[in-house]
Amino acid sequence: MTKNSFISDTFLLQNKYAEELYFNYAKSQPIIDYHNHLIPKSIAENQKFDNISQVWIYGDHYKWRAMRTVGVNEKYITGNASDEEKFSVWAKTVPHTLRNPLYHWTHLELKRYFGIDEFLNEKSAKEIYTETANQLQKPSHHTRGLLELMNVEALCTTEDPTDSLEHHKALAKDSWKVKVSTAFRPDKSILIEAEGYAGYIESLSKSSGIDISTYQDLCAALLKRMEFFHDHGCRLCDHGLNHMSYTDFTETEVSSVFSKRLKGSSLTIVEQEKFKTALMLFLCENYHRLGWVQQFHLGALRNNNTRMLSVLGLDTGWDSVGDFPQAQTLSAFLNNLDSKDKLAKTIIYNLNPADNEVFATMIGNFNDGSVKGKVQWGSGWWFLDQKDGMTKQLNALSNMGLLSCFVGMLTDSRSFLSFPRHEYFRRVLCNLLGEEMASGELPNDMALIGNLVANISYRNAKDYFKF
Amino acid sequence: MTKNSFISDTFLLQNKYAEELYFNYAKSQPIIDYHNHLIPKSIAENQKFDNISQVWIYGDHYKWRAMRTVGVNEKYITGNASDEEKFSVWAKTVPHTLRNPLYHWTHLELKRYFGIDEFLNEKSAKEIYTETANQLQKPSHHTRGLLELMNVEALCTTEDPTDSLEHHKALAKDSWKVKVSTAFRPDKSILIEAEGYAGYIESLSKSSGIDISTYQDLCAALLKRMEFFHDHGCRLCDHGLNHMSYTDFTETEVSSVFSKRLKGSSLTIVEQEKFKTALMLFLCENYHRLGWVQQFHLGALRNNNTRMLSVLGLDTGWDSVGDFPQAQTLSAFLNNLDSKDKLAKTIIYNLNPADNEVFATMIGNFNDGSVKGKVQWGSGWWFLDQKDGMTKQLNALSNMGLLSCFVGMLTDSRSFLSFPRHEYFRRVLCNLLGEEMASGELPNDMALIGNLVANISYRNAKDYFKF
Amino acid sequence: MTKNSFISDTFLLQNKYAEELYFNYAKSQPIIDYHNHLIPKSIAENQKFDNISQVWIYGDHYKWRAMRTVGVNEKYITGNASDEEKFSVWAKTVPHTLRNPLYHWTHLELKRYFGIDEFLNEKSAKEIYTETANQLQKPSHHTRGLLELMNVEALCTTEDPTDSLEHHKALAKDSWKVKVSTAFRPDKSILIEAEGYAGYIESLSKSSGIDISTYQDLCAALLKRMEFFHDHGCRLCDHGLNHMSYTDFTETEVSSVFSKRLKGSSLTIVEQEKFKTALMLFLCENYHRLGWVQQFHLGALRNNNTRMLSVLGLDTGWDSVGDFPQAQTLSAFLNNLDSKDKLAKTIIYNLNPADNEVFATMIGNFNDGSVKGKVQWGSGWWFLDQKDGMTKQLNALSNMGLLSCFVGMLTDSRSFLSFPRHEYFRRVLCNLLGEEMASGELPNDMALIGNLVANISYRNAKDYFKF
Repeated sequence: MTKNSFISDTFLLQNKYAEELYFNYAKSQPIIDYHNHLIPKSIAENQKFDNISQVWIYGDHYKWRAMRTVGVNEKYITGNASDEEKFSVWAKTVPHTLRNPLYHWTHLELKRYFGIDEFLNEKSAKEIYTETANQLQKPSHHTRGLLELMNVEALCTTEDPTDSLEHHKALAKDSWKVKVSTAFRPDKSILIEAEGYAGYIESLSKSSGIDISTYQDLCAALLKRMEFFHDHGCRLCDHGLNHMSYTDFTETEVSSVFSKRLKGSSLTIVEQEKFKTALMLFLCENYHRLGWVQQFHLGALRNNNTRMLSVLGLDTGWDSVGDFPQAQTLSAFLNNLDSKDKLAKTIIYNLNPADNEVFATMIGNFNDGSVKGKVQWGSGWWFLDQKDGMTKQLNALSNMGLLSCFVGMLTDSRSFLSFPRHEYFRRVLCNLLGEEMASGELPNDMALIGNLVANISYRNAKDYFKF
Repeated sequence: MTKNSFISDTFLLQNKYAEELYFNYAKSQPIIDYHNHLIPKSIAENQKFDNISQVWIYGDHYKWRAMRTVGVNEKYITGNASDEEKFSVWAKTVPHTLRNPLYHWTHLELKRYFGIDEFLNEKSAKEIYTETANQLQKPSHHTRGLLELMNVEALCTTEDPTDSLEHHKALAKDSWKVKVSTAFRPDKSILIEAEGYAGYIESLSKSSGIDISTYQDLCAALLKRMEFFHDHGCRLCDHGLNHMSYTDFTETEVSSVFSKRLKGSSLTIVEQEKFKTALMLFLCENYHRLGWVQQFHLGALRNNNTRMLSVLGLDTGWDSVGDFPQAQTLSAFLNNLDSKDKLAKTIIYNLNPADNEVFATMIGNFNDGSVKGKVQWGSGWWFLDQKDGMTKQLNALSNMGLLSCFVGMLTDSRSFLSFPRHEYFRRVLCNLLGEEMASGELPNDMALIGNLVANISYRNAKDYFKF
Repeated sequence: MTKNSFISDTFLLQNKYAEELYFNYAKSQPIIDYHNHLIPKSIAENQKFDNISQVWIYGDHYKWRAMRTVGVNEKYITGNASDEEKFSVWAKTVPHTLRNPLYHWTHLELKRYFGIDEFLNEKSAKEIYTETANQLQKPSHHTRGLLELMNVEALCTTEDPTDSLEHHKALAKDSWKVKVSTAFRPDKSILIEAEGYAGYIESLSKSSGIDISTYQDLCAALLKRMEFFHDHGCRLCDHGLNHMSYTDFTETEVSSVFSKRLKGSSLTIVEQEKFKTALMLFLCENYHRLGWVQQFHLGALRNNNTRMLSVLGLDTGWDSVGDFPQAQTLSAFLNNLDSKDKLAKTIIYNLNPADNEVFATMIGNFNDGSVKGKVQWGSGWWFLDQKDGMTKQLNALSNMGLLSCFVGMLTDSRSFLSFPRHEYFRRVLCNLLGEEMASGELPNDMALIGNLVANISYRNAKDYFKF
């Protein structure tokens, strides 16, 4: 096969309508990446990478899982092998990832960032390692250059309440054209059953300057940090939870649960649920007051492998899809806020596609005409962030809600090389629409459908987030 | 784009086999709409509508949800705006519903009932409002005319046990060619936890002439109403439930639960389940005795938005898809009846497509050779009543049961303009089969496949319901 | 329609890539059928069948369910009708199974084993009955011939711990070229709540020579049987469970639960879960020690129709798909074993496709680089063993794991005529890949994709099971 034939111009675009939609309405739209896990220090300091392993393999637990599945020793994944050895092992793994999104991401990223058309495999590994290392030394391929190359207009990282936001402050003073914002993510204050909870509360005490010994102190400290974040431009928050908690509680109960936990006792499930319900309501009421957008990522089953967790820590590839009941408590929680007129703009994400229709229809319960697309169902997340997952989300959203109001794609990524996922999403979207134009299920009206594409690619997010 | 190009003759039919199946075996079949929510008074009195808003927007919470999602104020949806203003706002919303079934329904209904080929949008709104208003004044477009236009042979509305059936009586005496029947829907007597339960029991006392103070009275009253319904031609019933209840109970327990509730106490979940199990078994045994068909619509999560519920009441667009466990209690309930040889013909419907395979295989547990297709899995319901939802139901039913025994489509609608949904279903069915004839997955035997189409479109329902 | 047109050479293969993949890389691969329910006696004695009903309808509850659904009386299914009558009724049913996998299996099996191209229906029934009866008298169509015809290299039946393995012993001494192995399936010792549990324990006492009066005795007896199985070449085991149990327990608790049950008492759910957790851990630790592959089939809802169960017994077509929660306990169970480094090679199978993504991602939690594809997600099982079910499994596995490591297809069948299901699976796989080669989603590299096909069809299983 010849060069250019895999990631071709018409990659994923199966007919002329799809091509026209993509090239005329999607391709040139800027990127608003409203949720990711980039390290702000890397942006503020315009970090340079020695080689592609550092920007591509370090921290990428998708690739790690793939390597472990084909039988690669951990030494070459997160261990003490050299960067070049790690790259070489990854290169050897790539042909085994056929049909996994990694196969597409890999070649799309090599092409878009480095102009490389070769397939990555054992044979091409050395040449590509050298070529990418060379390119990474150029300012065009330091972190800021990589973002500019992708036409990123604004992006939003995710920080713990204890974060100093020092790099966001530095970026705010900078004249760089890409807007870098932050999202408040207080999971550690909510997951009260976690090991090390008391230690986290101590660090929150320090960062907030409020000595936290009661639940009321905790609220005050979080509020102080929210206001600090708000003052530094934060307008989003994010929560990662198994499921949304919702149960009856009294302030007294919650206070005593918190105290009990601070003393080191373990809690019953009921106690945990009371605490989480109370604290989440407190936070969300304040998000509403501050005019933030709140995001809920629901349904992951995390840290399944305790042996590897103890070696490598969190977020190293030992998480999977849960099957928690979602509908009733999520509904009751949102309803509680709505009934007090304290429901902020909200985006809900599910990890188990079996919940797609629950989420697709849940948003309609609270879209009351007050704001266009006020409650959103987020794009395919994590394991669902691939063509099939995107397509199912787009279809269920279309059938049970309004696709036209959708704020579209985000990378959710830790890597500076993940931004072609926006292109990928747009191609999937354009192809879906183009095929229905061809079949007659959509009107043969390029301006109408093109406008839909442009809105979902960029304009809806621009209006919704007001970055 | 030119007229006629969107809802063309071959709409949804992608090849010659599909066309031949539709035009030769489906199109001319009469409609048996065995489950809907039409208002019998409107039929009995052959109601005339002043304008299209009255027949199309009033009461259509699908459209309401769409308008709310794009940010329309409630005034123009259920509020005091004029009918023309409401239509105008809906027209403006339509282009934002692309890929939602509303977009297809809208243009299919304008075409079939009014011969209109224009796209509905802000520009065409006024002209279409005037044109439809004119046509609605003609007898051909009063309620009976609208039903005749669609070749409806029989239809079945849904009434509460307290209903007087006065309009059904009137229709029975009428010489009109369309058979109008009723289905018994005693949800309000079963949902014992609902606010206003005691009040409902009072009205049931009145309508039955039995003073209900005990559970035994309740059963007697419901039985009396069933016999009244039966005497007026009722042969179907319907239940809308989160999930089928099934738990151990004693008559004594159930009696005391009922008494407790009548006195205004709230009940535990266990108490509710005991009551519901007992009453549902009582009812279903009598459905069997009377030779009725029983329908169970399972899995909706209703009334999620209490603020809007208090303003607008039930069924106004604040419901969504639940994720209740379904399999074990549904199986145990049906088995209880079957083991006593008291299982009536049964149709089960699920709202969450994650339950498709549970339902598709459940029916096989009780199809024992006694009646062809005795236990049926109902067609895609509510949020699933669109091409994707229908297709998934047809596929799962085909793979895990027998498509050939399926009784097919129903509108489940409140609107006199919804009957082209039968056409829509038939087109989807014919296209699915036509594509497999083309690919060789089905035999290239038009008579064989055409017979299947005709059976599912009409004959199976005719045989099953014996209208 | 002419002969040869339905099960044509290109059946299920929609383009040239698919054809090339199938004919060059899949078709000639031998079959390793690593999980089925064939009767070893039939193989050992090279059983001859009088007629096709005996090998095709006897014991095939898929066909039974279909016949019952169209309204066939049990007499012609499992009753005392003659074999020819039963075949005739099945033949009449076949045209009603369009789109069910039975329709494809039926004609594929008639073609591959008997060279018959006719459609089976009422008209062709007599001729086909006679023709197949004649062929079944030839040695080529006795059990061993049927397996040789399909190019079976190795197969693995499934036996209870009490089994004498006499037929496996006989086969081991035989010079026949097909390797016949067994898998250990101790469900009856685990399902402690089942009627007849005490009776089963008695027979286990006898077969093991250990008088079982305590939980410790039970473990000792099972261990002795495992070693017996191991000595006779067993390297696999299998478990059929609603869900994987996992809860805290102490040895004392479990001992008293077992004693309580032996005395005839019924158990609470908590007691059952403690017992099952303990015994499953005990067994799985020993599977690991012996180097076996363990299989878990999770999610069936069995014996739903107690009336028919009492007449016909287990596995006669009254089972369906359950909706049990799966993720948390399965994760915790596998993690318990993994944390002690006692996790054997494992294959998990789900019956409810709503759990596909839970299972597809669960395997990645325990694939730690130690063995290629150590934890596998099994191929579409039972109700999912058809084109749609296979395709969804292949897609979810591809998207969330690595398709390249998959050990592929198994029949899970009771019938000697089911082996063309391997061909069916391979055609589905080749078509899926061929379509993506055509669309450009996979590289146009026949050697690369062909190698994937050959691995999944045969080589991965060969490496994994080491038959």
